[in-house]
Amino acid sequence: MADSLITLTTDFGEDSPYIAVMKGVILSINPCARLVDLSHQIPPQNLRHAAFFLATALPYFAPKVLHVIVVDPGVGSERALLYVEVDHHRLLVPDNGCWTGLARASASQIQVRQLTNARYWRQPVSNTFHGRDILAPVAGHLSRGLDSARLGPLVKTWVRLETPPARAETDRVVGEVVFVDTFGNLITNIPGELLGEVKEPHLRVGIGNGARRRIPWGQTYADAQPGTLLALLSSSGTLELAVAQGSAARRLPAQIGTRIVVKWNR
Amino acid sequence: MADSLITLTTDFGEDSPYIAVMKGVILSINPCARLVDLSHQIPPQNLRHAAFFLATALPYFAPKVLHVIVVDPGVGSERALLYVEVDHHRLLVPDNGCWTGLARASASQIQVRQLTNARYWRQPVSNTFHGRDILAPVAGHLSRGLDSARLGPLVKTWVRLETPPARAETDRVVGEVVFVDTFGNLITNIPGELLGEVKEPHLRVGIGNGARRRIPWGQTYADAQPGTLLALLSSSGTLELAVAQGSAARRLPAQIGTRIVVKWNR
Amino acid sequence: MADSLITLTTDFGEDSPYIAVMKGVILSINPCARLVDLSHQIPPQNLRHAAFFLATALPYFAPKVLHVIVVDPGVGSERALLYVEVDHHRLLVPDNGCWTGLARASASQIQVRQLTNARYWRQPVSNTFHGRDILAPVAGHLSRGLDSARLGPLVKTWVRLETPPARAETDRVVGEVVFVDTFGNLITNIPGELLGEVKEPHLRVGIGNGARRRIPWGQTYADAQPGTLLALLSSSGTLELAVAQGSAARRLPAQIGTRIVVKWNR
Repeated sequence: MADSLITLTTDFGEDSPYIAVMKGVILSINPCARLVDLSHQIPPQNLRHAAFFLATALPYFAPKVLHVIVVDPGVGSERALLYVEVDHHRLLVPDNGCWTGLARASASQIQVRQLTNARYWRQPVSNTFHGRDILAPVAGHLSRGLDSARLGPLVKTWVRLETPPARAETDRVVGEVVFVDTFGNLITNIPGELLGEVKEPHLRVGIGNGARRRIPWGQTYADAQPGTLLALLSSSGTLELAVAQGSAARRLPAQIGTRIVVKWNR
Repeated sequence: MADSLITLTTDFGEDSPYIAVMKGVILSINPCARLVDLSHQIPPQNLRHAAFFLATALPYFAPKVLHVIVVDPGVGSERALLYVEVDHHRLLVPDNGCWTGLARASASQIQVRQLTNARYWRQPVSNTFHGRDILAPVAGHLSRGLDSARLGPLVKTWVRLETPPARAETDRVVGEVVFVDTFGNLITNIPGELLGEVKEPHLRVGIGNGARRRIPWGQTYADAQPGTLLALLSSSGTLELAVAQGSAARRLPAQIGTRIVVKWNR
Repeated sequence: MADSLITLTTDFGEDSPYIAVMKGVILSINPCARLVDLSHQIPPQNLRHAAFFLATALPYFAPKVLHVIVVDPGVGSERALLYVEVDHHRLLVPDNGCWTGLARASASQIQVRQLTNARYWRQPVSNTFHGRDILAPVAGHLSRGLDSARLGPLVKTWVRLETPPARAETDRVVGEVVFVDTFGNLITNIPGELLGEVKEPHLRVGIGNGARRRIPWGQTYADAQPGTLLALLSSSGTLELAVAQGSAARRLPAQIGTRIVVKWNR
């Protein structure tokens, strides 16, 4: 266990010393910990961005890897800090719901503890940097084999942050944009299954309050001419709006949360 | 081999979950792989930027290190994915030419395979994220010692992306800007040897379509007053235009591809 | 020692190949070195930013970890390169003072050597990239157990870069902004102790040349309504000006070096 993997996901940015501080704390407790940076560029305090990031990335990791997440607009308030086991993933995370998208399946196995045992914390604990004072040292101790039962009691309630699922209506599907990636692709929460078997060459898509657009359907970006808007299945299996070799986010008036309506003839 | 080094170079940016996903896939196959981030800030789908990056950085690594590169504007098209051995460097890379600058010397030893053996891929393979579904799992297996001959057949042709070399004419040298770095330094493809033995205190340089400028020649940035434009040898041994403690990219109308003409009295 | 930790802090940015080059050089000399990125987003050549970063982050690391720092506006000039031991931290750093904030306590144990032994350098040494040619190879050799005494002679003088400490006057405390973090929080050099025991609900704060403002005092960000300016203790124990769930840097006319005066009734 002593060389176990610890991933780090924060909104600290890399020009600030905070992530370096956390790495120092973890490695001082367990010099053999193997740190893996997932992202330090989550937009500051953006829980919805963090939620999509974690729900997309963490399932690809093996069981037992320890994931430390510090996106924490409530630092210093009464919000709890949690140790979570969800489908064999292990997380240390503020209780703000950014992780609950991982527990989508009804059969998800979830165990949640509130961190209360100060024995594994750095002292004194500041009001503004619990990542350094609580999450990092607890991660260091867990990676050395500490039994998670020592961290604090099991709890039955926690904050949930979940995007309402897309819904199929009589002649349309209603969902929303859940992520805008580096390339400007708009990822929605509309599962490919809700679109049925696409037989038409175009989708009719309403974006926010705008007029409905006819958007050609493609299997991949290369199916469209460079600069052309297209709809396709994202790598997560949901509807994605993209511009081939360009940015849909710059073309369309859409951001995280923008309502997307697909008018669909089945 | 099980703890072998794998470097990662992508244009994913760090706010998107894609690089985290790839790390999860690799580490799930080989938990002992040691991942080294080279860059995830290659400008989106910018093959020329990637080409300069790789040609500059990879030669400093030891033989046998495995380099995974995902700058892939052609994802989902018919473009192949390659396993490349070039001068003992090992690469997994889309067939878009971003790596071919590594094979400059005529004596370069090159062996290229097309990835066709789906046994080492993630299933199902998406149309939009071959980094996750093909390159990452293949990297995981290679790092565990898989024989590269299992990946697919040797091929004899591949896409090439090479900047035409600078050329010496009667009284001038013609080249171009091949990179603009973080500091705003303009790196050209004009080798120092083509400039001969600089005896004059100034170079006369034409930049794009602009009028020729007299630019003082220096050994290093510290040879010029802060804020002053100067010409010097880059750390790659080519002509570089810089502003001491400032940015030449903000001062001059130049970017990657801008033509550079040095009028030179020899 | 062969698997010892080496941290990297630079102003190279991640789109440039320079940090990848340094990683290649280090790992070629010591394939077992464990590299830990602290930051490559120090603003270019910003020594004061680097100084705050290092003074904040490095003390959290265990003794003997080797820290390589390349923020080097003087590269190629006569400035020396140093091997520093300060309170058991080990640094390789240009002689520009960005590290001297680590030696605040009068009892600090400091040993400084000038790197002069070219045997451990890459040849030829360029004029523009000593990180690659000197610091990285020396780091590789040190991480393999090289005795630091081999690097060069002990020296007694070096460049110092220290922010004058805040000072208490009759009815006020005078300091300055020493850092602006990712969230736009303004961190000052005014220690909490100088503010005494805060009994008033507001501080009166002068910022630069602006009129004095009444700023509510909080224990943590959550004590203020979102969007509200507040004063609190930073995670380093100094006065911090923040906007709850917002950015003080966008609200106030302040940056690194801006004078901060707290009028204080004791």
